[in-house]
Amino acid sequence: VSERKRAGIICVGTELTEGIIQDTHVRFMASELTAMRLQVVRAVQIPDSAPIFRAELARAIADCELVIIAGGLGPTSDDLTREIASEEAGMPLEFHEEVWKGIQERFRGRTLSETNRKQAMSPRGFGLIPNAYGTAPGFHGMIGKTLLAVLPGPPAELRPMFLRYVPSLAQGLTGTSADEVSWGTAFMLAESNLEEAFQGCRKGEVSWGTRVEDDRIVFNLRGAVADRDGLLADLEILLGARVRRGDVKPAKLLSEALLARGMMMASAESCTGGLLGKWMTDLPGSSRVYWGGVIAYSNQSKQRLLGIEGKILAEHGAVSRETSISMAEGLREIYGADVGVSVSGVAGPEGGTPDKPVGTVWIAVARRGEETAARVFRFPGSREMIRRRSAVAALLFTEACLQGLEFPQFEV
Amino acid sequence: VSERKRAGIICVGTELTEGIIQDTHVRFMASELTAMRLQVVRAVQIPDSAPIFRAELARAIADCELVIIAGGLGPTSDDLTREIASEEAGMPLEFHEEVWKGIQERFRGRTLSETNRKQAMSPRGFGLIPNAYGTAPGFHGMIGKTLLAVLPGPPAELRPMFLRYVPSLAQGLTGTSADEVSWGTAFMLAESNLEEAFQGCRKGEVSWGTRVEDDRIVFNLRGAVADRDGLLADLEILLGARVRRGDVKPAKLLSEALLARGMMMASAESCTGGLLGKWMTDLPGSSRVYWGGVIAYSNQSKQRLLGIEGKILAEHGAVSRETSISMAEGLREIYGADVGVSVSGVAGPEGGTPDKPVGTVWIAVARRGEETAARVFRFPGSREMIRRRSAVAALLFTEACLQGLEFPQFEV
Repeated sequence: VSERKRAGIICVGTELTEGIIQDTHVRFMASELTAMRLQVVRAVQIPDSAPIFRAELARAIADCELVIIAGGLGPTSDDLTREIASEEAGMPLEFHEEVWKGIQERFRGRTLSETNRKQAMSPRGFGLIPNAYGTAPGFHGMIGKTLLAVLPGPPAELRPMFLRYVPSLAQGLTGTSADEVSWGTAFMLAESNLEEAFQGCRKGEVSWGTRVEDDRIVFNLRGAVADRDGLLADLEILLGARVRRGDVKPAKLLSEALLARGMMMASAESCTGGLLGKWMTDLPGSSRVYWGGVIAYSNQSKQRLLGIEGKILAEHGAVSRETSISMAEGLREIYGADVGVSVSGVAGPEGGTPDKPVGTVWIAVARRGEETAARVFRFPGSREMIRRRSAVAALLFTEACLQGLEFPQFEV
Repeated sequence: VSERKRAGIICVGTELTEGIIQDTHVRFMASELTAMRLQVVRAVQIPDSAPIFRAELARAIADCELVIIAGGLGPTSDDLTREIASEEAGMPLEFHEEVWKGIQERFRGRTLSETNRKQAMSPRGFGLIPNAYGTAPGFHGMIGKTLLAVLPGPPAELRPMFLRYVPSLAQGLTGTSADEVSWGTAFMLAESNLEEAFQGCRKGEVSWGTRVEDDRIVFNLRGAVADRDGLLADLEILLGARVRRGDVKPAKLLSEALLARGMMMASAESCTGGLLGKWMTDLPGSSRVYWGGVIAYSNQSKQRLLGIEGKILAEHGAVSRETSISMAEGLREIYGADVGVSVSGVAGPEGGTPDKPVGTVWIAVARRGEETAARVFRFPGSREMIRRRSAVAALLFTEACLQGLEFPQFEV
């Protein structure tokens, strides 16, 4: 393996160094750059100050092969990125008539001040990075032996621009092109589980990188298309519904499966306390697939909202196959939903027993004309993590039931 | 106003520069340091690499009056902070017997390896910063004219240690001591609203700083105790339930108000889709105050779960005073809760009308033997922001009803 090339990230904005906003660029870009096999040697947040910015950029150019600047491309005098990049490159700023037309188009009907003209400028000899989601394009060019890429600060603009353009711009540093990459998502696995699974697959010449998020691992595979497809097919056999092609999220997967079948889902949540419903309704238009549900947090609410018999609760407990099945079936029977999903578990930190330790969670899925499916999970982690993992599991297990996918058990 | 002193933040860990974890230290510390009237000139994330760390620390010492290092205090060979700080200070590491005893105490019953001994070391002449939440203490000392403070990486350790010790350590730079500070929290206000409110109060010699979080603004006041109290009292008159003393969160406030009265609350959520229930159940032991609830997302679920008459929905619509009141009272009547809270609104992006634009949200609170209270809000922002603001408003409005606090309307 050859030495990894060095990358630096500079995020510009006094709102970062005064703690007014939370930076999310570093984590996003650092994981993408790492997946591209670059070494991020420094990520830095600096205020809108010309001397600080100038020193920081000079230093990054001196010791990195790739430098990414995020932010400072707005129209106000605080926004210094164009001027500082132009100085450092030793190239004057050039006005792009076609970019200016695009900006005017975008602002049609509103007054554009002369200061907005600056957003149509970039250092001479630099290429433009189109911005489909905002006003200011980015730009890229070489300063000495360093590739500089400049992107606007809003995440909704930076992220798609980064994903679309930076991998090909950096191809010379990373040795792969964007069309040699496949993406996938793994759910409810530790990174070590996924690593093990990769080891058990046909790998050909494929290499891989991962980005670990709260509830999922997004991974990319680099290599010949046939090798990548073979590896993905093997992963699907090993991991069933826990691995998917593309960069996908659980609530979206389930919503699409419901929509395709014209089904409405209802939820009965105990330990997740409403999180499953919250996620199902994050997406606009969710009323086409999500009917509503109940938060049956106390035993009394399980009886009153879902008609669970006191006998079942007394005999088997709130966290049991029997109770979770009754909860899911109650939704179908009492409220008439097409699909009823229940979650009942011990989120902790109190309430665990030797039989049912903290992290024990039952999930059941009731459907019209089908036997109700129920599964027990044991999740590690804090109360918050157990609740999040329970909600992810409920979404994915339900979707797997609808699609007829295997959902293998894993110790994580 | 004298020139602000310069502060630098160094966060150490390859998990940051590979994008495996999201940094949250910078935002937290930057806002605190800004509130302490320091200028954060640079916050940087670096990997666990000795040459990179060494260069970064030397640079920060050279151009800042205060440098804070977060992380790298663990027991493994990756953890370099002690060694690098000792080198830069030109002082050997010293072993502290009493710290080592504390670590052994903490690990009682488990094996401690020799490498753990390193966690009991700090550069000679440096002071220790006690860690009540983990193994490794932090330390602080002068390197030339720069104050260096070193804190462990886990946020649950760093945050309380920072708040308790850094303001007094930095007193020489900021000119105020920690016991001259009062904290407060403002809810559902723009920073400009709060600024305006401050301007309308008796200020004496009090100065203030803010930290803006997702759903609240935490602020601090510095000055003589009588002046701070006068200002807080004025703010409470102006802002009612929207301002509180201390650094407080809405779900906690409501839970405490319910607990003090021995009351159980139930929730009926439409646009928030379960978020209110999720927040109420975030706290362990929430089953003493939260009964459960319904997610009445569709009109059909409002009828089936809460017994809302079709006539009310048809005449007034799902987002209306009448429907929200029926929802809250349905909880009380059908399920017997002490307090019933309902939220119904247009979260968007679709579904707005000239009468009820996106962001219109009704909240109602029904109590035994009291008239049901109902209020309409208009929230700006994205679907996600409107949903979060609705849930915050429901928690606070309910608590204000229980406590008999004013809840003034504000345009934000």
